[in-house]
Amino acid sequence: MTNATAIFDASVPRPLGAPHVAEAYAPANIALSKYWGKRDTALNLPTNSSLSISLGQLGTHTKVAPADTDHLSFNGRAMGGDATAAAKIWRFVDRFCGVNRPNLLIETTNTVPTAAGLASSASGFAALVSALNDAFAADLPKETQSMLARFGSGSATRSLWPGFVRWNVGERRDGTDSHARPIDANLPDFRIAVVLVDSGPKAQSSSEGMTHTVKTSPLYATWPTQAEADCDAIEALVRDGDFGSVGALAEANALAMHASMLAARPAVCYIKPASLAHLEALWAARRDGLEAYATMDAGPNVKLMFEEKSRDDIIALFPTAQIINPFA
Amino acid sequence: MTNATAIFDASVPRPLGAPHVAEAYAPANIALSKYWGKRDTALNLPTNSSLSISLGQLGTHTKVAPADTDHLSFNGRAMGGDATAAAKIWRFVDRFCGVNRPNLLIETTNTVPTAAGLASSASGFAALVSALNDAFAADLPKETQSMLARFGSGSATRSLWPGFVRWNVGERRDGTDSHARPIDANLPDFRIAVVLVDSGPKAQSSSEGMTHTVKTSPLYATWPTQAEADCDAIEALVRDGDFGSVGALAEANALAMHASMLAARPAVCYIKPASLAHLEALWAARRDGLEAYATMDAGPNVKLMFEEKSRDDIIALFPTAQIINPFA
Repeated sequence: MTNATAIFDASVPRPLGAPHVAEAYAPANIALSKYWGKRDTALNLPTNSSLSISLGQLGTHTKVAPADTDHLSFNGRAMGGDATAAAKIWRFVDRFCGVNRPNLLIETTNTVPTAAGLASSASGFAALVSALNDAFAADLPKETQSMLARFGSGSATRSLWPGFVRWNVGERRDGTDSHARPIDANLPDFRIAVVLVDSGPKAQSSSEGMTHTVKTSPLYATWPTQAEADCDAIEALVRDGDFGSVGALAEANALAMHASMLAARPAVCYIKPASLAHLEALWAARRDGLEAYATMDAGPNVKLMFEEKSRDDIIALFPTAQIINPFA
Repeated sequence: MTNATAIFDASVPRPLGAPHVAEAYAPANIALSKYWGKRDTALNLPTNSSLSISLGQLGTHTKVAPADTDHLSFNGRAMGGDATAAAKIWRFVDRFCGVNRPNLLIETTNTVPTAAGLASSASGFAALVSALNDAFAADLPKETQSMLARFGSGSATRSLWPGFVRWNVGERRDGTDSHARPIDANLPDFRIAVVLVDSGPKAQSSSEGMTHTVKTSPLYATWPTQAEADCDAIEALVRDGDFGSVGALAEANALAMHASMLAARPAVCYIKPASLAHLEALWAARRDGLEAYATMDAGPNVKLMFEEKSRDDIIALFPTAQIINPFA
């Protein structure tokens, strides 16, 4: 793998030996500064950097092992190769292994409850690339694994590390500098609470919503520059341990992303009436002195950011919220 | 009044004779292409043109008469000169009359129910300028009255005419070309339905929300250009009688305005959970074939645009909605 871009190409043979059994874990993550917009769809390159907090024990365990025939399971249930999700996973494995890929057993188990309202594709692809790297003794640097994980899901780039992680937008056209790196942080009391909003299946996938927004929203034009500035600022604030400023800016960044969607033609609106009611409750509590902030992704659930000292207040205000300690 | 800008200046004497009793009516209006942002606060000049439909019989009747002492009443109740609204009205009268203003009786009656969720400042200032013009036999052209109404409320420029009206942004620094004009329209079946959302008093006035958005929203930058393009397009579509395209574009324009607010730092959000629930109900009905669209102003109420043929469907979907025929 001397040619850096050859590892992107499923049609190129790899000098991989026979695989051995390997297991890996990767955490889910929640972006404080959002990834929203691609500059290259084929390479899954973003228009702006993003920054997330990994969710500690909530994530994906993946086992890779040699097998007589390909077999893929998710939480103990076999996934047929035809299903969209399974096909995407095998395409990802092909990309890693090249045309000379041996048959494999892949067992995936999520510690994120399916009902938790947290995306599992980020931890899934991060755990998969990590397990493949071990199984084939490929010894790829973490940054290269992050770059590869990008082909499965943009946010997977960030799930290769615990704690605060930045996915740098990169400059190269081949995407070899568009991967994540961990950030030296000073926010040990940072916590997340997920407030679930039951809304049935999503009307639009995040990828569809993103493409449609970039293409049709007149307000998207200023997003890439603003998002990059937000990411830089949040990184500096995370290093400084300034929780209040991190939270306020992360909330503003998320709302700007949703605003860019609301202005799409026609509108994309992942915010549901119940999501907005939770945001209003938060804003009212904040006016009363609670130091907590919200972020939302391409779905209806509200994710709160707060510090350990506010745990009781958060539970009192949002009794159904799932509290997550990213550092536990 | 040979100097066009002298009529803006309350300190300049006017060659006005003694007033006689005069009555005038002006309709409320709902913008299909929104006014959002000022390029000059003192002159109340907008950053973009806007276009509205006047609401027929819903508006303001105003009587102006000579009096021994100033007296102002609203819906039969005396308004003291100290109240903010009253002070603004008298400042407006001073601007019209100049320093040599005689004492006046001003009686204002709204035919818009106070609970209707429709702003009355537009019809109020339009009726007032019209009544003052008659009372003093000033014989100002309608365009000049519209320009003057602007000092009371930007949207008042458009309430000088029935039907579809465009307030042109204008180019002159003195604002003398920033007034409204009627549009030859071909949409006789155009109807409005107001769906009320009870939300208590507004957290922020529309003027505060506008100023804060222009100042802090990173997504506002593209609004003025887009809003001007929307206004031009909606004007052409109104002339063509293309209801579906008018509705879709008016909805997109309104959501873009609200999106610019959501991205303000901190966010301005006039959309309430119940507003969003109404929007979702509308969007679902539209997927099922209903040709109706929504617009919202700086408040929680949802205003639907539809054609007479859809009246029964609108009533079935939104039983509490107030139906308005702008041409009745």
